[in-house]
Amino acid sequence: MKIIALLTDFGTEDNFIGVMKGVILKINPEVTIVDITHQIGAHKVKKAAFLLYSSFSYFPKGTIFLVVVDPGVGSKRKALAVKTRNYYFIGPDNGVLFPSLEADGGGEVVEIMNKKYLLNPISSTFHGRDVFAPIAAYLSKGIKLEKLGRRIVDIKELDLPQAKIRKNTLIGEIIYIDSFGNLVTNIDRVTLEKFTKNRNFVAFLNKKKITRLCDSYLQEKKKPFFIEGGFFKLEISLKMKSARNYFKAKEGQKIVIKRK
Amino acid sequence: MKIIALLTDFGTEDNFIGVMKGVILKINPEVTIVDITHQIGAHKVKKAAFLLYSSFSYFPKGTIFLVVVDPGVGSKRKALAVKTRNYYFIGPDNGVLFPSLEADGGGEVVEIMNKKYLLNPISSTFHGRDVFAPIAAYLSKGIKLEKLGRRIVDIKELDLPQAKIRKNTLIGEIIYIDSFGNLVTNIDRVTLEKFTKNRNFVAFLNKKKITRLCDSYLQEKKKPFFIEGGFFKLEISLKMKSARNYFKAKEGQKIVIKRK
Amino acid sequence: MKIIALLTDFGTEDNFIGVMKGVILKINPEVTIVDITHQIGAHKVKKAAFLLYSSFSYFPKGTIFLVVVDPGVGSKRKALAVKTRNYYFIGPDNGVLFPSLEADGGGEVVEIMNKKYLLNPISSTFHGRDVFAPIAAYLSKGIKLEKLGRRIVDIKELDLPQAKIRKNTLIGEIIYIDSFGNLVTNIDRVTLEKFTKNRNFVAFLNKKKITRLCDSYLQEKKKPFFIEGGFFKLEISLKMKSARNYFKAKEGQKIVIKRK
Repeated sequence: MKIIALLTDFGTEDNFIGVMKGVILKINPEVTIVDITHQIGAHKVKKAAFLLYSSFSYFPKGTIFLVVVDPGVGSKRKALAVKTRNYYFIGPDNGVLFPSLEADGGGEVVEIMNKKYLLNPISSTFHGRDVFAPIAAYLSKGIKLEKLGRRIVDIKELDLPQAKIRKNTLIGEIIYIDSFGNLVTNIDRVTLEKFTKNRNFVAFLNKKKITRLCDSYLQEKKKPFFIEGGFFKLEISLKMKSARNYFKAKEGQKIVIKRK
Repeated sequence: MKIIALLTDFGTEDNFIGVMKGVILKINPEVTIVDITHQIGAHKVKKAAFLLYSSFSYFPKGTIFLVVVDPGVGSKRKALAVKTRNYYFIGPDNGVLFPSLEADGGGEVVEIMNKKYLLNPISSTFHGRDVFAPIAAYLSKGIKLEKLGRRIVDIKELDLPQAKIRKNTLIGEIIYIDSFGNLVTNIDRVTLEKFTKNRNFVAFLNKKKITRLCDSYLQEKKKPFFIEGGFFKLEISLKMKSARNYFKAKEGQKIVIKRK
Repeated sequence: MKIIALLTDFGTEDNFIGVMKGVILKINPEVTIVDITHQIGAHKVKKAAFLLYSSFSYFPKGTIFLVVVDPGVGSKRKALAVKTRNYYFIGPDNGVLFPSLEADGGGEVVEIMNKKYLLNPISSTFHGRDVFAPIAAYLSKGIKLEKLGRRIVDIKELDLPQAKIRKNTLIGEIIYIDSFGNLVTNIDRVTLEKFTKNRNFVAFLNKKKITRLCDSYLQEKKKPFFIEGGFFKLEISLKMKSARNYFKAKEGQKIVIKRK
């Protein structure tokens, strides 16, 4: 049983996702389709790249990831189909696939060109339906990657930001805020512990402080704290409350940590 | 593999859609269920009719469309099951199916009456679960349409609004606004081009102007423009921004186009 | 075909639900996954308990309910897998499963402990992915309940509030507000009719009145009314409008009914 997993910025209010699924099932009625999410916010390529990177390895080998976050739709940007060590990835050449391709390794990249495997006509604005969905469906039926277009080597790169140590300071960034309001950083627990060497620390975000690392949401009742979350990164959380609201935090903001 | 595609105004916050799927799978565990959308807004029959009409042909032949936008639930309005040339459509007799039935043609219409194929008891308020879902499931198992009730001929009509030329003016309407804020009109690209005959034009919406037809979202950086969108109708868009917000536009508003 | 039905408070904006489905399909690619809802609001255990209780019996025998509303994740609260007369239920031991277990009867309860059937590593914050999803998948493959951990007897109880008659007053409560704004009470139609004995009544909610019981949304055009809804409980509704907004109502508020 082949699986196609969808990640887009299309939201769920329109008929866009439903129609893409119709296109897929018309080509391969036996495939299983899974939604990763469609609600990352319009045009957020970097956020989609992070979510894809954080999701793909949980899926069965051979899963086809269909990713449409595509502000350049209808322009000259390439449409890609990629086979990595364990998976297939389909999406626009704007970096959204890049961190996942690097992480899984062994990428064989094709620029989608063969109109035989696309809808006809192709609209200027909805390549999710007209280009990417049929390609995913044909791959799920066993069509070889090389039949879809021409092999290319250079694709757009996009690197997720890394935490750094500068002198006596550990500098990280909020790379994602989940819908509970937890602030996912790019700092590993191990990195923090190496940096603090079991001494106290103080982290600053929007002039507010975090001074504690907890093992569960229930350890600290009032103050914000770090906790290693489901992304296996440190998250800033507040018991039963939204850290986003408490800190008025936004994705991309810096976190500065000092030893006490 | 049979497919049932759902389009409702139930939203995704309640358990309504989940329960309908349970009912379907209890009758036919082998069917594939696809959501078109459930977030069109309560009681918006015309909007649902447009989305169904714009979606159905992308699905495999034989797909059963289960449409529940039903402000008259529990009143005397009929419940319909329809076989068209290529599909099945199930829903209330309030016009929501009408444009799709006309477009696919060859409709054989049954008023759902046979209690053998419905849940027992039938609530006054949730025919999606008690009437429409089991009917869809039984159709997907191959039960013949004529077993579900009695054949009828007259059903409620609903016509999607058409663009018109009046003297020197092309008059269209916003028939849908997508979640990116693009304003989908009922004007075809061909209609506009025939009307303008390659001369300049100016379109008015809420006292603001559109003067350009683009081929991609990236052609025009600052001003609003027309583009042929995924519905193969002209849409009013703004690069990386919401045209809905820019124009303070609402569905149903008129667009007036004049030659310069 | 085995079915796993998901009910969580994770929302649909993050990749959490998608990743849980990936985990499930990696273990059992043949299972059918259905969403009941993920949008009940963070940490609302009682609301989730009500929705699960109102949903489960519509699903096919043997369905596995995977319920993750889990403010105590990472603490000492137990993780449960339960086999009832007709179904399986998986979730945290915080009462969320309790009303459904009581209603279906015959529960055999296991505290999930066997790491062989869990992901490795297990995060502190996302047991939906690391504990509950793999357990559901293994159950769907036919692994016996007793292999998952040790049998226990005592679990956390949670009782849904019951309507009561006190002297000349029937006292109920809003137990759920749906996304149309209908106020679902815990009062049965039969209870109200026994109480009123066909005489007039007046119900009070936030100093506003309800005096009528209707059979359809279309019977009463202007005033709020009771109607027996899809939960087979009385709901307070307004034709084509939100009773939530009209009454400024909240879940948990009391409704007091007197005979006139």
